[in-house]
Amino acid sequence: MQKIKIKSPATVANLVCGFDILGMALNEPYDIMQVQLLNEPNVIIRNNDYFGLPEEAEKNVAGVVLLSIIERMKNEIGFEVEITKQIKPGSGLGSSAASAAGAAIAANHLLDNIFSNEEMIQFAMNGEKLASGVKHADNISPCISGGITLIRSIHPLDIISIPAPDLYVTVVHPQIEVKTSDARQILKKQILFKDAIRQWGNIAGLITGLIKNDHDLIGRSLEDVIIEPVRSILIPGFDEVKKKCKEAGALGGGISGSGPSVFMLSKDESTAKAVEQVMKEVYNKIGIDYNTYVTRINKRGVEVVSG
Amino acid sequence: MQKIKIKSPATVANLVCGFDILGMALNEPYDIMQVQLLNEPNVIIRNNDYFGLPEEAEKNVAGVVLLSIIERMKNEIGFEVEITKQIKPGSGLGSSAASAAGAAIAANHLLDNIFSNEEMIQFAMNGEKLASGVKHADNISPCISGGITLIRSIHPLDIISIPAPDLYVTVVHPQIEVKTSDARQILKKQILFKDAIRQWGNIAGLITGLIKNDHDLIGRSLEDVIIEPVRSILIPGFDEVKKKCKEAGALGGGISGSGPSVFMLSKDESTAKAVEQVMKEVYNKIGIDYNTYVTRINKRGVEVVSG
Repeated sequence: MQKIKIKSPATVANLVCGFDILGMALNEPYDIMQVQLLNEPNVIIRNNDYFGLPEEAEKNVAGVVLLSIIERMKNEIGFEVEITKQIKPGSGLGSSAASAAGAAIAANHLLDNIFSNEEMIQFAMNGEKLASGVKHADNISPCISGGITLIRSIHPLDIISIPAPDLYVTVVHPQIEVKTSDARQILKKQILFKDAIRQWGNIAGLITGLIKNDHDLIGRSLEDVIIEPVRSILIPGFDEVKKKCKEAGALGGGISGSGPSVFMLSKDESTAKAVEQVMKEVYNKIGIDYNTYVTRINKRGVEVVSG
Repeated sequence: MQKIKIKSPATVANLVCGFDILGMALNEPYDIMQVQLLNEPNVIIRNNDYFGLPEEAEKNVAGVVLLSIIERMKNEIGFEVEITKQIKPGSGLGSSAASAAGAAIAANHLLDNIFSNEEMIQFAMNGEKLASGVKHADNISPCISGGITLIRSIHPLDIISIPAPDLYVTVVHPQIEVKTSDARQILKKQILFKDAIRQWGNIAGLITGLIKNDHDLIGRSLEDVIIEPVRSILIPGFDEVKKKCKEAGALGGGISGSGPSVFMLSKDESTAKAVEQVMKEVYNKIGIDYNTYVTRINKRGVEVVSG
């Protein structure tokens, strides 16, 4: 195989009470990447979109991932990549992870799948390091595997797939900028022990609810007493959106990644669409531009479209 | 029914990374309680053991539970109770919870089961309040229901039963005193955010491992970076016991409740017995008296023996 075309999905990291340990893949939005194998150690990148992302390999998320693969392959290969990005950078929907994971999986296919899932996650984390300064896997891992994944530990890497129920996801991306570094800086280094206990009660409830497909338990457990109260200040309209979405029937939800996107889970499509309507009304009233998505949990991860 | 005899099991609260939210019932040890219905508002208690626990109803764990039930029944009934306690008070094996939950369940049987599980937990928590000053349910709940239970929240009470794998449990109770109040006092009010994240990664892993019956995942997740490093100082030999038990094949384990008992989970009986041998060797060497138990996770909770 010399050429491949893949779809790399958006992802929601954190999942409310699962800060830094949970992530979930979405059917939409997704990026398209075409990757071609070269026989010299070079990375050529073309961005087929309007986001103005860098095309120098060292400065591009997909680029650094591919460079690390080329290095592992003893500089005997290279890649040419065309990226059609549909997940907006800075949306909180795992835009950099889609590039990083997509690049790693596409390259692995072109190399006859010589790398394990764990190796691909390690390669892809180089892209996250470039994008946010931190090697984290809570977007990359669900992007690669689909569904919901638990990153129990980063050192050593311990990733567990959590059975994902057939839920609908509504997302609103208000068009404001929240820098991941700011969103991280705002968090306190110390937290109250009693808040931590409440949080791990909720994470235990959420995991149980997801595995047992218990929608009410999922809803009750989608509570974050530590990060959300601090970070939601950066997202205009957050409290109103959350309250009204739950009144409209959403099981619950919260900030996607470090924001500004907000996601809500619903049992069925009609509720998910009613939730979308509520989100639109709030941001129309506030006067902030936005995108919305009504989608489902993606159970496949990065997919080969052709090649 | 006028008279009933029940077995009320020992319980392990916390389960390492599940501080204040998880509890597990054991087949052994257990208390025996005989409870008789009276037709006047009185509680008569006889202790059929050598622990010297108070027999005045207001000062006795089972007594205050029964008093709260009598009050709810508009003072039209009373109870006579004989308690044969085999779970040593102060062992960290839920001795007070066994009295409290046993009293609530026995009374409920004698009253034709008019109270729900949740109401019985509420009654029984009065006993825990007397014993430790805090209304907590992490021993009571598995004592009543058996298996492993998650207390997602105390206010409002939200208890979820977690499927318990068929594991063996080895317990050592070194005969030293650790007061629950001291064990609680020693904990810090603030903890590092990064430690909390690691802890909720582990609790998520443990819940997944328990539900999926994944023994390796259970073992990897039985890690507590917050409470154990502080509390284990109160338990002589703890680090050595833990290290050697794992070398002997235990999946993992830690402090039972607030100690001093230490528990270890194993896949099979022969490993559980090898683990017991290791515990004996350590405490023989240190020169502290001890009891050990090799038992299993109890899946039934409080049981009626006759009545």
